[in-house]
Amino acid sequence: MALDGVLDDVLTRDWERPTDEDPIRVAMVGLGWWTREQAIPAVADATACETTVLVSSSTEKAESVAADVDTVTATLSYQQFHDGAATDRYDAVYVCTPNALHREYVESAADHGKAVLCEKPMAADVADAEAMVQSCDDADVPLMVAYRVQTEPITRRARELVRNGAVGEVVSVLGHMSDTMLEFASEDSWRLDPDLAGGTTVNDIGIYPLNTIRFVLDADPQAVYARTEAEQAAYEGTDEHTAFQLEFPDHVLASCTASHSARTASSLRLVGTDGELTLEGLFFPQSEKVLRLSTDDADREIHPDPVDQMREEFDYFANCLQRNRPPEPDGRHGLVDMRVIDALYESASTGERVVV
Amino acid sequence: MALDGVLDDVLTRDWERPTDEDPIRVAMVGLGWWTREQAIPAVADATACETTVLVSSSTEKAESVAADVDTVTATLSYQQFHDGAATDRYDAVYVCTPNALHREYVESAADHGKAVLCEKPMAADVADAEAMVQSCDDADVPLMVAYRVQTEPITRRARELVRNGAVGEVVSVLGHMSDTMLEFASEDSWRLDPDLAGGTTVNDIGIYPLNTIRFVLDADPQAVYARTEAEQAAYEGTDEHTAFQLEFPDHVLASCTASHSARTASSLRLVGTDGELTLEGLFFPQSEKVLRLSTDDADREIHPDPVDQMREEFDYFANCLQRNRPPEPDGRHGLVDMRVIDALYESASTGERVVV
Repeated sequence: MALDGVLDDVLTRDWERPTDEDPIRVAMVGLGWWTREQAIPAVADATACETTVLVSSSTEKAESVAADVDTVTATLSYQQFHDGAATDRYDAVYVCTPNALHREYVESAADHGKAVLCEKPMAADVADAEAMVQSCDDADVPLMVAYRVQTEPITRRARELVRNGAVGEVVSVLGHMSDTMLEFASEDSWRLDPDLAGGTTVNDIGIYPLNTIRFVLDADPQAVYARTEAEQAAYEGTDEHTAFQLEFPDHVLASCTASHSARTASSLRLVGTDGELTLEGLFFPQSEKVLRLSTDDADREIHPDPVDQMREEFDYFANCLQRNRPPEPDGRHGLVDMRVIDALYESASTGERVVV
Repeated sequence: MALDGVLDDVLTRDWERPTDEDPIRVAMVGLGWWTREQAIPAVADATACETTVLVSSSTEKAESVAADVDTVTATLSYQQFHDGAATDRYDAVYVCTPNALHREYVESAADHGKAVLCEKPMAADVADAEAMVQSCDDADVPLMVAYRVQTEPITRRARELVRNGAVGEVVSVLGHMSDTMLEFASEDSWRLDPDLAGGTTVNDIGIYPLNTIRFVLDADPQAVYARTEAEQAAYEGTDEHTAFQLEFPDHVLASCTASHSARTASSLRLVGTDGELTLEGLFFPQSEKVLRLSTDDADREIHPDPVDQMREEFDYFANCLQRNRPPEPDGRHGLVDMRVIDALYESASTGERVVV
């Protein structure tokens, strides 16, 4: 049956292949809280990579962070990074800056011949994202976009179940993500600045259900609709809450909601001709994850042991590089989200369905 | 705290008040499978009402059904019903015919001075629904629309929790309903005939999340968007799958999906500033119901004993009539859904947001 084996070993690293290669040496570009509190500890815990270079606008901050990471061999200013300093100290670059600044660091990394793991969304606009794909193509360096949910084990098990037909043909999808951004970001955060971020809620967290649905269905939206709302003054001129719809091929319709001003919550539900699959908590690294599957044959509820999503992502990325395999999701995959997000904001502005 | 008491007695009939009145005598108008298999058994099990009259196009069918219901004292043709036969044998009318035919039976019931419980949607178009409200107003008879989910206990507990602030301010809502209609209805069913039904999936089952969200939030949509899809040939010219959005006051956005060609499934999820509330299975009489509440104070999961939703609805309706209290949801409440459904179909046709 469609379930066979898929849920026997929920946490399996189905992507991992042993190598004799040395760990991939990573330069961390941008030392905001996500890099410091999530990425660096994840890489310290990973087996296939290590943090060797820190790049920041503030030499003081870089040195302060470096003091706690014993694998670091160089700290660089952004200008030094662009100029090609210490390129013998790292093999790959993790870019975690405001969205609009990703492009310049990705392009310098490409110039230096380094593989790139770039945070999502790839950029603040489609043109920058296209240029980044082109630059990495031209330099023949791998460009992976950091959709950590794609290496979250229950997302991968969900995709296998759907591929195996566990729920039959998928008909309806519901996705949600919310957090309380103003509790961890100040009102002058770049995330609230359309020029630096390219939008706030749709592209910052709406991208999670959007991308995860694409991943699980292995399909891309053909047309979209979105509504956005700005309730608090801090969100004036950008989007605080959203609801959006995605039309996939074969009549599959997805309805999503996202908010930066609601309790931390995330869920994904797929209803097919033969079953229903629900994932709870999958968009946050720290949330308890639950997978529920209901079919005529089985009702299963799985509470897997927690994994560090960022460690899984970095180990996946590094394991691919060690084996000279292109890591996925690549830049072209990320570019699809950029175009969909652009269409969602256009729809929110016009009140009309937009063909992607 | 906001939870106090609400979940102590999940199945409580918070609406019930004891009376010394005789049971309300109900005429069943339309003897399709829903009336025979759900309504008549529910009334047989109810305490405040009994089935005394059966009205059908087929005298043979009426007599055959009557043979198994020992409280029945009269069987009538539709024409006899219109003509006022046996009006001394019933106090109230349950109308369960194709949507476009509700109006004529409701108006005759009003002419006869009988209280009405009319299946949802009230009619196949807004004009008929408006006329029905007017007729019942003119005759001063109560008109209740048969939203059985409003007397489903976990829906009522959910509304209490939301009213008490258990999830804070609601921000996002997700709703879903699906079934496999062609397994219980033939391809020449009136439900597939736009003239008789007024639409197929949005108004037949999309109405469940729509109405239940209205009930739980105690608010009505201000603007909507919908997409509909027809996949199988039987649905040509009408709607098989849908996804729709509802904009409520105070920036609350709801995203819903519904399909007549997917596994039987129903769910409602409300995410607020302080918590998340999920209801499973609530739109089907036979499904197992689950209520999950997650807040900073509590994580609760309730699996209440099953209740007969139709029995609860009929007992509620009859108990109100015994006490001369107007039963809710009334015709004006149902009319809001009719206008919203009209807007949803208009949106699906134009691809544009529609203000209700």
